[in-house]
Amino acid sequence: MTGDRHDVGLLSPVWAGGGAEPLVSDRAYLEAMLEVEVALAETQAGLGIIPASSVGPIRAAARSGRIDPVALAHGSRRAANPVVGLVGALTGVVAELSPEAAEHVHHGCTSQDVLDTATVLVAARALRYTDDALVRTADALALLVALHRDTPMAGRTLTQHAVPVTFGLKAAGWLSLVLDASDRLRAVLATGLPAQLGGAAGTLAAYNEYAVGAPSAGEGGLPGRGTELVGPFARRLGLTAPSVPWHALRTPFADLGAVLAFTSGALGKLAVDVQGMARTEVAEVAEPSGEGRGASSAMPQKRNPVLATLIASAARQVPPLALVLTQALVSEDERSAGGWHAEWQPLRECLRLTAGAADSAAELAAGLAVFPDRMRANLESGEGELFAERLNALLAPALGKAAAKKLLARLSAEATAGTTATDGPGTPFAERLAAVPEAAGLFTGPGAPKDLLEPSGYLGAAGILADRVLARHAAR
Amino acid sequence: MTGDRHDVGLLSPVWAGGGAEPLVSDRAYLEAMLEVEVALAETQAGLGIIPASSVGPIRAAARSGRIDPVALAHGSRRAANPVVGLVGALTGVVAELSPEAAEHVHHGCTSQDVLDTATVLVAARALRYTDDALVRTADALALLVALHRDTPMAGRTLTQHAVPVTFGLKAAGWLSLVLDASDRLRAVLATGLPAQLGGAAGTLAAYNEYAVGAPSAGEGGLPGRGTELVGPFARRLGLTAPSVPWHALRTPFADLGAVLAFTSGALGKLAVDVQGMARTEVAEVAEPSGEGRGASSAMPQKRNPVLATLIASAARQVPPLALVLTQALVSEDERSAGGWHAEWQPLRECLRLTAGAADSAAELAAGLAVFPDRMRANLESGEGELFAERLNALLAPALGKAAAKKLLARLSAEATAGTTATDGPGTPFAERLAAVPEAAGLFTGPGAPKDLLEPSGYLGAAGILADRVLARHAAR
Amino acid sequence: MTGDRHDVGLLSPVWAGGGAEPLVSDRAYLEAMLEVEVALAETQAGLGIIPASSVGPIRAAARSGRIDPVALAHGSRRAANPVVGLVGALTGVVAELSPEAAEHVHHGCTSQDVLDTATVLVAARALRYTDDALVRTADALALLVALHRDTPMAGRTLTQHAVPVTFGLKAAGWLSLVLDASDRLRAVLATGLPAQLGGAAGTLAAYNEYAVGAPSAGEGGLPGRGTELVGPFARRLGLTAPSVPWHALRTPFADLGAVLAFTSGALGKLAVDVQGMARTEVAEVAEPSGEGRGASSAMPQKRNPVLATLIASAARQVPPLALVLTQALVSEDERSAGGWHAEWQPLRECLRLTAGAADSAAELAAGLAVFPDRMRANLESGEGELFAERLNALLAPALGKAAAKKLLARLSAEATAGTTATDGPGTPFAERLAAVPEAAGLFTGPGAPKDLLEPSGYLGAAGILADRVLARHAAR
Amino acid sequence: MTGDRHDVGLLSPVWAGGGAEPLVSDRAYLEAMLEVEVALAETQAGLGIIPASSVGPIRAAARSGRIDPVALAHGSRRAANPVVGLVGALTGVVAELSPEAAEHVHHGCTSQDVLDTATVLVAARALRYTDDALVRTADALALLVALHRDTPMAGRTLTQHAVPVTFGLKAAGWLSLVLDASDRLRAVLATGLPAQLGGAAGTLAAYNEYAVGAPSAGEGGLPGRGTELVGPFARRLGLTAPSVPWHALRTPFADLGAVLAFTSGALGKLAVDVQGMARTEVAEVAEPSGEGRGASSAMPQKRNPVLATLIASAARQVPPLALVLTQALVSEDERSAGGWHAEWQPLRECLRLTAGAADSAAELAAGLAVFPDRMRANLESGEGELFAERLNALLAPALGKAAAKKLLARLSAEATAGTTATDGPGTPFAERLAAVPEAAGLFTGPGAPKDLLEPSGYLGAAGILADRVLARHAAR
Repeated sequence: MTGDRHDVGLLSPVWAGGGAEPLVSDRAYLEAMLEVEVALAETQAGLGIIPASSVGPIRAAARSGRIDPVALAHGSRRAANPVVGLVGALTGVVAELSPEAAEHVHHGCTSQDVLDTATVLVAARALRYTDDALVRTADALALLVALHRDTPMAGRTLTQHAVPVTFGLKAAGWLSLVLDASDRLRAVLATGLPAQLGGAAGTLAAYNEYAVGAPSAGEGGLPGRGTELVGPFARRLGLTAPSVPWHALRTPFADLGAVLAFTSGALGKLAVDVQGMARTEVAEVAEPSGEGRGASSAMPQKRNPVLATLIASAARQVPPLALVLTQALVSEDERSAGGWHAEWQPLRECLRLTAGAADSAAELAAGLAVFPDRMRANLESGEGELFAERLNALLAPALGKAAAKKLLARLSAEATAGTTATDGPGTPFAERLAAVPEAAGLFTGPGAPKDLLEPSGYLGAAGILADRVLARHAAR
Repeated sequence: MTGDRHDVGLLSPVWAGGGAEPLVSDRAYLEAMLEVEVALAETQAGLGIIPASSVGPIRAAARSGRIDPVALAHGSRRAANPVVGLVGALTGVVAELSPEAAEHVHHGCTSQDVLDTATVLVAARALRYTDDALVRTADALALLVALHRDTPMAGRTLTQHAVPVTFGLKAAGWLSLVLDASDRLRAVLATGLPAQLGGAAGTLAAYNEYAVGAPSAGEGGLPGRGTELVGPFARRLGLTAPSVPWHALRTPFADLGAVLAFTSGALGKLAVDVQGMARTEVAEVAEPSGEGRGASSAMPQKRNPVLATLIASAARQVPPLALVLTQALVSEDERSAGGWHAEWQPLRECLRLTAGAADSAAELAAGLAVFPDRMRANLESGEGELFAERLNALLAPALGKAAAKKLLARLSAEATAGTTATDGPGTPFAERLAAVPEAAGLFTGPGAPKDLLEPSGYLGAAGILADRVLARHAAR
Repeated sequence: MTGDRHDVGLLSPVWAGGGAEPLVSDRAYLEAMLEVEVALAETQAGLGIIPASSVGPIRAAARSGRIDPVALAHGSRRAANPVVGLVGALTGVVAELSPEAAEHVHHGCTSQDVLDTATVLVAARALRYTDDALVRTADALALLVALHRDTPMAGRTLTQHAVPVTFGLKAAGWLSLVLDASDRLRAVLATGLPAQLGGAAGTLAAYNEYAVGAPSAGEGGLPGRGTELVGPFARRLGLTAPSVPWHALRTPFADLGAVLAFTSGALGKLAVDVQGMARTEVAEVAEPSGEGRGASSAMPQKRNPVLATLIASAARQVPPLALVLTQALVSEDERSAGGWHAEWQPLRECLRLTAGAADSAAELAAGLAVFPDRMRANLESGEGELFAERLNALLAPALGKAAAKKLLARLSAEATAGTTATDGPGTPFAERLAAVPEAAGLFTGPGAPKDLLEPSGYLGAAGILADRVLARHAAR
Repeated sequence: MTGDRHDVGLLSPVWAGGGAEPLVSDRAYLEAMLEVEVALAETQAGLGIIPASSVGPIRAAARSGRIDPVALAHGSRRAANPVVGLVGALTGVVAELSPEAAEHVHHGCTSQDVLDTATVLVAARALRYTDDALVRTADALALLVALHRDTPMAGRTLTQHAVPVTFGLKAAGWLSLVLDASDRLRAVLATGLPAQLGGAAGTLAAYNEYAVGAPSAGEGGLPGRGTELVGPFARRLGLTAPSVPWHALRTPFADLGAVLAFTSGALGKLAVDVQGMARTEVAEVAEPSGEGRGASSAMPQKRNPVLATLIASAARQVPPLALVLTQALVSEDERSAGGWHAEWQPLRECLRLTAGAADSAAELAAGLAVFPDRMRANLESGEGELFAERLNALLAPALGKAAAKKLLARLSAEATAGTTATDGPGTPFAERLAAVPEAAGLFTGPGAPKDLLEPSGYLGAAGILADRVLARHAAR
């Protein structure tokens, strides 16, 4: 059975069964191609280039459900694209309804006009879907930022505790990247998705030729010539009209690749941070749970961070796929023998992987469990080392910068040695510090040295910075 | 309808409808996963770890056709892989046949054991298919080499005529690359495709645990413990047994990626050369024609080199996809949260794109039309410039190397200027040369200067080299 | 000798010796890092955080030329970055001038603040350089468009003659891509290159800490705290101030990677087209010549299209290098242990490869020799097949679309067979056509059928489209 | 000053100042190119093709140190490669010594013969260096495996504790990958690095031409013709002789790219695991310390895992760079106009990044501090959840598989909730389990339930598997 050959998403948990899947399926591409053929006929009829009576049969045939995507797929090998077969099949169905209308299918058109424009239609829908998911992600993250604006946690650089930060600032960073991604998606949606209409080699010559003598033509005029087709054609499809055909100028798809790669990477940052914080030993956050969510086939206890895993798996796939689109800029002649054809599947895959990643991110952000107590416990586990930078600032005026740094490095090494030694816990960092004569002056105030080692006293501008990202989010 | 969501290959003319498609479809993966579960049960029963009576129901359930890949795909999001759902579904069907047998499904196993081993099964089949196609390609190319061993044509470097070569040597180069690819595929097939069996974290602990007290255990012994399972399990599936589980050591998939990328690139060289030689102005070869082959939706006259186009489109996609597999080597812990998951779809895509490219190459090589007259005409169009290197060798002893090179560069520039000038054709290179006093000595023999400018007199070792590649091919 | 270890560009003819090389050399990075340290000190002094007297010695030391980049490079291994060594070396030189000022070097700062900001400075300079070269390229291309607005040539799709186009439209396509690239570069230059200032983990805490009690502080206030530093610091360096530190939010470098990959690809399209048109058999354009330009070490006659070759070599390298930058978005924690470090060299390489490609494109576009006669000759060599689409449009009303297409395909196949047959030239396409009864009506007008097969009569909107791109260029 | 333009490794701490740097520097390439020219002259003299007296002056000139790499680099733009300039410069120096010998420099040769062979020489040296570092890495890892064969630690999948493993098995996994990498490097070293000798378009025609009439030629023979040159030429350089020239058949460089990408990825796995285990909260291993090692410019206490960071940074760069080499397989004609040129710098960068990563890995493995107590503490922190799989195996016979899994999932969820609740620590997993009636039977033996939750009792075949990798290492 033919169905046995088809992909149903079994290897793609990121998007299988999700909302974007039907927007970018082969069926969706087929329908978009049929939409393009109909829009072309409607536009040409509107300009008097083909008889108005042809539009009805073409539209009816396009919507008849009688064009079989499997047959087109299997036939696509002959012409290296599915449009040649589509035109044949569509013409056949139209001819049954009206032989005359069949003469006006795909009039003056070329395969690339149909497939590129259909791809843009599909991409626009997938991008809107993805942007919606980014908005949901951003909203949920903004809530986390606000809730945890002042929740201290360990800042980590090169895997080690560095200085305290807040979870609010960390989430604000994620939010900032999501807004960056959404800004870029919207820019492409606003101006980067033109219809394609150029004819065989981008001159619109055949569109012109068929328009010669169209009834609406004035004296010596060529109403309906190619350039006049483009605007109304694009408008019918809700797309922008390009200033020139882009058959061999692949800016729109390269831009799509770039924003999708960016978006997948921005979400990947969220994922990798959640994974780090969800590690068993860190345990500062946990993914939303649910029936069967995060289950293992072997281990009953597992609550795997599956949403972050899905997002991370997309972030590993999309940028290399998008590379194919960037490299397709280098395409010879008026239509590349391979460059164009290589774009189709990678672009579709980028669209659905990124959409699935955005869906997962929205769910993750909305349901993320945050454990401030554990954040504090981790902060305190470090024996005060997180405050070495601060102490350096305080000791430097008295000791000199170099001597202060050296002293603190020594105390820190001793404290670390203590915690990993097998002969029992070492002397805590604070006590070691208090025993240093040069540091005595730091501990004269009430609460010292405890206050000096209080994370909330060394958060810098974390709150202000988090607020800035919230303001950016609110202003959209 | 659910079917509307599925991929049927509409955007992938390289493999849609081809022989490899069903070998790597979601159905193929599902069946391979079920084969793995059956082989595990059979092996465990053989070692007395589970009752022999459990095998029948498990095998029957696996072959029942009642596991729905769409349901698994849509459920895979919960656990970030399709195996958790598969085990549940399979257990359910087994339980209807035998509740006791249901207790022994997926015994001691983990998702990755199933999916990795199934992927290896699928990959082995696709690789064998691809190697067959490479063999057909090589056979057809060898025929071209033999037929055109001494057919001169222009050698081209940096797009310009350089010195004469033979079409036999060019085809021998393609053949050489195809043999390189086949050698690499066979090496992976021979030793690079191990079964995966490691349990939850690669220690085989659960396999051991379930084996404790198995009836076949001798005194104090642990027959059937994990390490003893691996060999028979692998043999049942026709795979090699790994020395250690490779859950987190992704050598096999990285190697697969490397050979598939290599193969696609090697075929891409054939494609890009055919495209260059098929250009309208060059016209030294033409692709095999056939009903609808190479048709355009716009231009009745077109005979597009569609096979080369398909191959080229695969060569642009596979290496970036394979990059995902190489990068998956960097996977943390005993199982990566995203690295593993990112491998699945790119590997499948690499398998089918490369298989489709190999099919296309076999068809292209078998049907390639070669036009020696056109090759000669192109050779002669260059006004003898192709022989400047040879003339340099002949003039250098008399004039000195530098002076000879300078003289020939001047003559060549003048001849070129002549051919592109608007004031009529220039003086041919040979005549220009004959008029140079220093060159007089070259033209004293009979036939000179004509013989000096005869391509067949300046083919170097082209024939010997072509023979070497034929010998390599014959020796396999 | 140490110098023996260094790169001088021997393997990089794209940029070796060019104008961008010194802008992005290691020396340029070193000087940019020193500029950053000076700007920080100046800004902190301006806010009263460090004594004004410290600035002079810091500035003098930075400009002393006494910091050895080789020593820094070789020491960078210890800390995995060159800044730790730089701070030590700089402090040492300052200390010789003023021990007190040495206390105020790198005050509150972290390695990443210095290296990221320095990289942005370098990138801004390289981008401006590249944009200048794109402007020169665009100007030269615009001239070609204007000169050849109506010069017919063969349009080629899938390597075959398709329908006529103009060289003006082809050059307008190149121009369009160059403008797209310039637009994207300028957008990044305008808003995408922020300074980096965040301190150890992006909270600005140490900057705050050092500012406590600064003489300019008002009652209870913290003037000069981190967030107040950022604006003046960025302004001093001519950069924008980021709303939040981007230590772990790598949007700016991902964007840089995207525009550089785009630019290299856009120029690659120009290169690959020039290469196709410069092929010996096509010979429609030639690269600018010059002393030694395009020379071969073997073949005296060669005039290789070296500029296009250089551009193409960059277009093959930059997108994969830029991929590293996109993938660096996925960077864990407040500073990645490897992700950040992986960005440096690929970004520098992208900058200089793209700059070199743009330089080459400007030279190529300004000096490109165009041969309209050869374009016409090539057009005419195709036996009228280029007009099959047009004839189809004319014959379809009488014969029906399908019958017309079939007829023309047959004629074309016969004509092609003729030209490649060994038994002499075949009957020309036009004569074959004229002999077809159904086509008789087409040839009643004066000049027919010759006029029908005149390229200038079937150029569609080529001129209008070229004008649009010129207008876009003029409007910038 | 010219030196200001040069790279000294400032942005590449992975290799700056390391042992591989001088092996792959521009100076090393220059010297390798000169070695090739000398070897060619020596071989040709040996066959009587050029006078024996020419060899001395050519050798002396090559070793004179008078060829300036900077001048060659800056001149390389004209011919798009540095060899044309090199030949000119070398010939000039030879001519000063012997005008006659100058006639025999680069005799019959082409740029690509020189640069490809030189690159192979450089690559062979860098690969041997890298393999030595891999051997050191493997030796050090083998020691860790042996020392920690039975040291239990938490196995982690998808970031969560899964089941116990041993540190010995983990290190054995790293060792296994390092051996895989070394095997692949050695295979390339053994057979994958051929000399290149083909002449202008790979036919060896000019080599033949110059050999005509060589004094050693027998009757009518052509001793010294091209094919007879190749073997002795390759032997002189310690390289294998290719069966055919590979100017346009880029298997050797594609293979190099593949093994370098593999090696960098294999080492990247080691790095990412060390980073995960070195995280402050995990602290199971620490990098070797040393003067300044791991220092931060901001934080006195930091001991950053810099070696793992350097390795990780290489693992992010090499695979995309190697992609350029794989993609260069798709190179048109007898020499690609850009494909060849794009290989040079990425290959060099792959060589030195991988060598630097291997050096770092050797140092890391030799000095890694391992903390078994902390491993045990982390194991025990998980409240027994690591043993849920084992308990499942024990409970399943009594309760049924599904019921057992459900019970354990519930207990685990409750225990987890306890540990993260704010209302104090929850009831430990073991106590919860003991209170379950169905589990009563598990705890009748002496030491139960404690023994059941003892990691060393659930290590499966970890020791056996580790031994296998040690045996593989020992057998090399």
